[in-house]
Amino acid sequence: MATETNNTDEESQTQTQPLLESHQHRQSLRGSLTNIYQYTFMKWVLCFLIGLTVGLIGFADNLAVENLAGVKFVITSNMMLEDRYLMAFLVFAVSNFVLTLFAAVITAFFATEAAGSGIPEVKAYLNGVDAPGIFSIRTLFVKIIGSIAAVSASLQVGKAGPLVHTGACIAALLGQGGSKKYGLTWRWLRFFKNDRDRRDLITCGSAAGIASAFRAPIGGLLFSLEEMASWWRSALVWRAFFTTAIVALVLRALIDVCLSGKCGLFGTGGLIMFDVTSEDSAYHLSDVPYVLVLGVIGGILGSLYNFLLEKVLRVYNLINERGAAYKIILACSISIFTSCLLFGLPWLATCLPCPQDSSEPCPSIGRSGNFKKFQCRPGYYNDLASLIFNTNDDAIRNLFSANTDSESQYSSVLIFFATCFCLSILSYGIVAPAGLFVPVIVTGASYGRFVGMLLGSNSNLNHGLFAVLGAASFLGGTMRMTVSLCVILLELTNNLLLLPLIMVVLLISKTVADAFNGNVYDLIMKLKGFPYLKGHAEPYMRQLTVADVVTGPLQVFHGIEKVSNIVYVLKTTRHHGFPIIDEPPLSESPVLYGLILRAHLITLLKRRAFLPTPMLTGTDAFKHFTAWDFAKKGWGNPDEIDDVDLTEEQMEMFLDLHPFTNASPYTVVESMSLAKALILFREVGLRHLLVIPKVSGRTPVAGILTRHDFMPEHILGLYPLMVRSKWKRLRVQLPRLLKLF
Amino acid sequence: MATETNNTDEESQTQTQPLLESHQHRQSLRGSLTNIYQYTFMKWVLCFLIGLTVGLIGFADNLAVENLAGVKFVITSNMMLEDRYLMAFLVFAVSNFVLTLFAAVITAFFATEAAGSGIPEVKAYLNGVDAPGIFSIRTLFVKIIGSIAAVSASLQVGKAGPLVHTGACIAALLGQGGSKKYGLTWRWLRFFKNDRDRRDLITCGSAAGIASAFRAPIGGLLFSLEEMASWWRSALVWRAFFTTAIVALVLRALIDVCLSGKCGLFGTGGLIMFDVTSEDSAYHLSDVPYVLVLGVIGGILGSLYNFLLEKVLRVYNLINERGAAYKIILACSISIFTSCLLFGLPWLATCLPCPQDSSEPCPSIGRSGNFKKFQCRPGYYNDLASLIFNTNDDAIRNLFSANTDSESQYSSVLIFFATCFCLSILSYGIVAPAGLFVPVIVTGASYGRFVGMLLGSNSNLNHGLFAVLGAASFLGGTMRMTVSLCVILLELTNNLLLLPLIMVVLLISKTVADAFNGNVYDLIMKLKGFPYLKGHAEPYMRQLTVADVVTGPLQVFHGIEKVSNIVYVLKTTRHHGFPIIDEPPLSESPVLYGLILRAHLITLLKRRAFLPTPMLTGTDAFKHFTAWDFAKKGWGNPDEIDDVDLTEEQMEMFLDLHPFTNASPYTVVESMSLAKALILFREVGLRHLLVIPKVSGRTPVAGILTRHDFMPEHILGLYPLMVRSKWKRLRVQLPRLLKLF
Repeated sequence: MATETNNTDEESQTQTQPLLESHQHRQSLRGSLTNIYQYTFMKWVLCFLIGLTVGLIGFADNLAVENLAGVKFVITSNMMLEDRYLMAFLVFAVSNFVLTLFAAVITAFFATEAAGSGIPEVKAYLNGVDAPGIFSIRTLFVKIIGSIAAVSASLQVGKAGPLVHTGACIAALLGQGGSKKYGLTWRWLRFFKNDRDRRDLITCGSAAGIASAFRAPIGGLLFSLEEMASWWRSALVWRAFFTTAIVALVLRALIDVCLSGKCGLFGTGGLIMFDVTSEDSAYHLSDVPYVLVLGVIGGILGSLYNFLLEKVLRVYNLINERGAAYKIILACSISIFTSCLLFGLPWLATCLPCPQDSSEPCPSIGRSGNFKKFQCRPGYYNDLASLIFNTNDDAIRNLFSANTDSESQYSSVLIFFATCFCLSILSYGIVAPAGLFVPVIVTGASYGRFVGMLLGSNSNLNHGLFAVLGAASFLGGTMRMTVSLCVILLELTNNLLLLPLIMVVLLISKTVADAFNGNVYDLIMKLKGFPYLKGHAEPYMRQLTVADVVTGPLQVFHGIEKVSNIVYVLKTTRHHGFPIIDEPPLSESPVLYGLILRAHLITLLKRRAFLPTPMLTGTDAFKHFTAWDFAKKGWGNPDEIDDVDLTEEQMEMFLDLHPFTNASPYTVVESMSLAKALILFREVGLRHLLVIPKVSGRTPVAGILTRHDFMPEHILGLYPLMVRSKWKRLRVQLPRLLKLF
Repeated sequence: MATETNNTDEESQTQTQPLLESHQHRQSLRGSLTNIYQYTFMKWVLCFLIGLTVGLIGFADNLAVENLAGVKFVITSNMMLEDRYLMAFLVFAVSNFVLTLFAAVITAFFATEAAGSGIPEVKAYLNGVDAPGIFSIRTLFVKIIGSIAAVSASLQVGKAGPLVHTGACIAALLGQGGSKKYGLTWRWLRFFKNDRDRRDLITCGSAAGIASAFRAPIGGLLFSLEEMASWWRSALVWRAFFTTAIVALVLRALIDVCLSGKCGLFGTGGLIMFDVTSEDSAYHLSDVPYVLVLGVIGGILGSLYNFLLEKVLRVYNLINERGAAYKIILACSISIFTSCLLFGLPWLATCLPCPQDSSEPCPSIGRSGNFKKFQCRPGYYNDLASLIFNTNDDAIRNLFSANTDSESQYSSVLIFFATCFCLSILSYGIVAPAGLFVPVIVTGASYGRFVGMLLGSNSNLNHGLFAVLGAASFLGGTMRMTVSLCVILLELTNNLLLLPLIMVVLLISKTVADAFNGNVYDLIMKLKGFPYLKGHAEPYMRQLTVADVVTGPLQVFHGIEKVSNIVYVLKTTRHHGFPIIDEPPLSESPVLYGLILRAHLITLLKRRAFLPTPMLTGTDAFKHFTAWDFAKKGWGNPDEIDDVDLTEEQMEMFLDLHPFTNASPYTVVESMSLAKALILFREVGLRHLLVIPKVSGRTPVAGILTRHDFMPEHILGLYPLMVRSKWKRLRVQLPRLLKLF
């Protein structure tokens, strides 16, 4: 899909104003103390606004889902109480269908970027890959509304991923400061017109997303550090922490309001907070073996899930490529299939008699509760319906609840597990905002509860605890995070005593799953074709030098260059950076002056500040420009060389590029080991890395390395024998049986 | 004090075997799959061992302190029940004196490196500064035993800092694999003989330290990430998490044993776990203003604490410099002063009548409990003694406990706060292992409880909660961490619902305190003279180029160098790395071949594999060496050039340095901005950075940059005018009044 890679900007790693590192302009815009104060103040204000907005949206999201889905379930349940089963099914299926159709239509026609969870896109952005349109206003609106519709439609999708994307969108849009087109920019926001500050804001935004989805501020922070961010600084932790603290406070305040019953059907269900706190959550070393087994199976299931999801997404991609109509039909078919399963399966379960000593009414009245009546006689309840004919949040609460060990049958939990497993794989790839977190949690929880039921009295742990551990193991097996998942689960269940067990389960399941395949988000990123730059060098890279992978003809400019030349090169190449070389008489011998960016060249051409003769301009050059001209552009359409229209006369004039050149580009010698060059490229966060020749005397630049030159696909394309080397990844290959799928 | 800076090794950033990046030997030792498996296996085994050992030591530490201090308090309390006050004081003071003397003597005579908390030393090491002897076996033993003695001696010192140092020591020693001298090395440990793997292990060790001190596995992990580690990778999070999970499991198992009463006086007191869980821990937005005020004052107090601590440490340094006797006298005086205060102050408090409805016995029997009798009549208790005449752990528990709002008087809490504040400042600098965490927590908790008492019924929060928040604010004001402190406090109090409030308090207090001065550990590091490299470039560095700061005569070697030359240069300089240059006839023009380390040159000289004539040796050169020869040495005495004794004849021979040279050193052009060079140096974790000239034709190397060249003191020494520039740090200067101190 999206393959444009407008990556991170090397200048922005060291300062906020990319352009102004050039020799003449070391005194940057942020020169005065006032500017520093403005910048610091704005940094925190923006984080505050991100926290506030994401908190509000997260709450509104929950409120809408709880009410939409709530009304649907109340109406259908009431009909079933009156034995009008067909009518109930129709109401259920049609409302699901309409909601899915709505979500699919707005996604397909207004913002296809809003489909899916959005976490892979944000993760790739934070690594330096700009997929077009992922942070536009349209995407934001479609993501919020579409996610509400898709979740309310009882599709097996979550809202955590979309909330992360929403948070990132809000951060990006706030940092961009409205739109220049509509005159909404603000002078104080000019400091954020560069890649580094934007990346920081978006990291905070994604932390806020998870924080508001699970009411888990520390979990959200850790998630953004462990999974999302490619670069990390202590200062960023602090700001992200502030953002998630604001989210937590906002949610706390709003829930205070809702507890007084002003939020319609928003009951205990919203903003998942499962209290597994019970007196008997004690556990001993003798329980550890069961937990280990749970972790191992969870890891295997998780990697199987990733494997199947990838296959399904490949098939879906073939369908979706055919056009919007196919996309929408696919989404609608999934909706109908889901409705049939959710309504049909509970009929398979036998009705259980209501327990005598239950504290809850049985059968449940309204929409939540452990005892759904469904088709049963009065005094009986359908345990499968309590799980399956319910919102995911309520299902998770039912599974996590303690002291309900005898309420479910083996078969019901097993059917529920299988249904969730299949439906969540089938639902992710449709053209609607769809998260993976909640489906994975609910699937894992049902798996865990089933294991707990199988073990029965062999273990001291109650089934609710097993469900929590099952969720942990399945999350570890798919998402492959450790600390952040652990904290998110602790914050969800509000029981710190579970910590050691959850830790062990996560470690085991991640280790097991890593033997088979990768992280689910990495798989999706790969499917989408994002050139994600990993943090470590592959072993075979140590056997290559930089000179081995530099390819293609190198385009350089002279310090003072003819306009027609610049236009010609910009039109015929797609490079984003060009080395600037000074030759005699400007210097004694050819010497590398620096690196200029395509975007800056286009700005120079657009302003037409040309010179009639080749001469040096010095700092006067800047009088034609403001800092805005060279600031990183917003998320709209970038300037293109084709938009520049010059006369014959102008084409014959000259430009002094020196003042606009980054005179301190990072360089490596051509004999440098590729692995070491990658470390430099990745750790410093570069977009271009200049290669200089080892032996002086020849041309001063030997080539230019970009992200694509470090991609394993590129290198292995050049040196196919490397694949067969002993450096292959340590990974168990799935048996051929699975390949047949 | 220690200023040797044997920093991180650039080679080790990309591979495990530093030497073998040279052209001829790209096929490194880890070439075979078996080696990779061995390495991976050992990595996890070492983490397991670190977790296990640190967990055991943390538990033993607690057990010893609880029993030593417990016996002391039980004996004195029993004497006081019999009204033998003078005798009680003597027993108390003498036992404290003896324990302090013991701790001071072993520290002063066996391992002065074990004095203090050890966190600054470990933090500096992880930044690349090797202080000599901090990870020796002697230091480890003195740290453990000395810490037990010092804490049992009722000094106002903690055991968390020493446990971090202990964890780091254990990690370093395990990674080193015993001692070569005693034949304790193991072949599989050869992979860890380099800076990068050692740093990783030590990061895990320090995480384990905090985890075992507070039974806070996630808090420990975050502490090591936020405060300790200078480089951070996702993979490291996972391993550190595993380590702290092991610690948590070990502690859990051992506490299971202790709960059955087999641990002597180790009661609820050991391994601080304060349950503030109470039904009425609800809070509302109306409480936020009080919390803000608490945070602001806490921040001011925290920065004042840091300020005073620095002044006291400066005075102590003057005393300690005079010799071991002075050190020990200082420690003993502090012990006597402490004993007098702890025993004397409770007499100032008026006795309170025992509450009628108390669930605990009043006055308390044994050593813990809220109702110490001290000098009071039967039926009465001394509230100040309950706090002050107690271990710190018990005092914290008393302060944190809910539903005890009426048990203390204003004056008692205020006196306790002032005592803790002063004593902890006075106690830190003595020659004994001494942590800061627990003293800061107890001081902050008393401050918070006092504020809670002042507010009385104006706030809905109970005083125990105020104590927790006060501890948070004071921790934030001194340590300046956010996320890790927040999680540690949550794990300590086991109440996740406090999260938003603690977050807000920490943010406020850190922000306020940052306006005045720095982190307490940074202050101590600066006092100790460690050249700590910060993560960001100072603004004035943007105005300088690399060429502006390169100093001193540059020593280079030729690819084939005469032995006498090498010996001469090594004897006359202290450099740790030397550029290797090839000249005609080896190349057409002088060309930079690479960089060789001092340690490797000494190894070459020691092995005496010299050539009679200048010639190239190729890979044959390695047949005289094993990988061990070039591996990073252990923590013992490094090889010195003065140990090498060569004959006249050998001095006239030659060495081909090519096979032993790192042929891919990182380089920057001399016109590179200093700020950007610092980013490269810091992010990639270099020890040497070669500067190459901009214009080719001259000598191929213009200089070499090391850590010291990036130190602000060095740069501002060269360019004093920079200090006066507008780039000064944004920091409120403390009023002159305080300077008088």
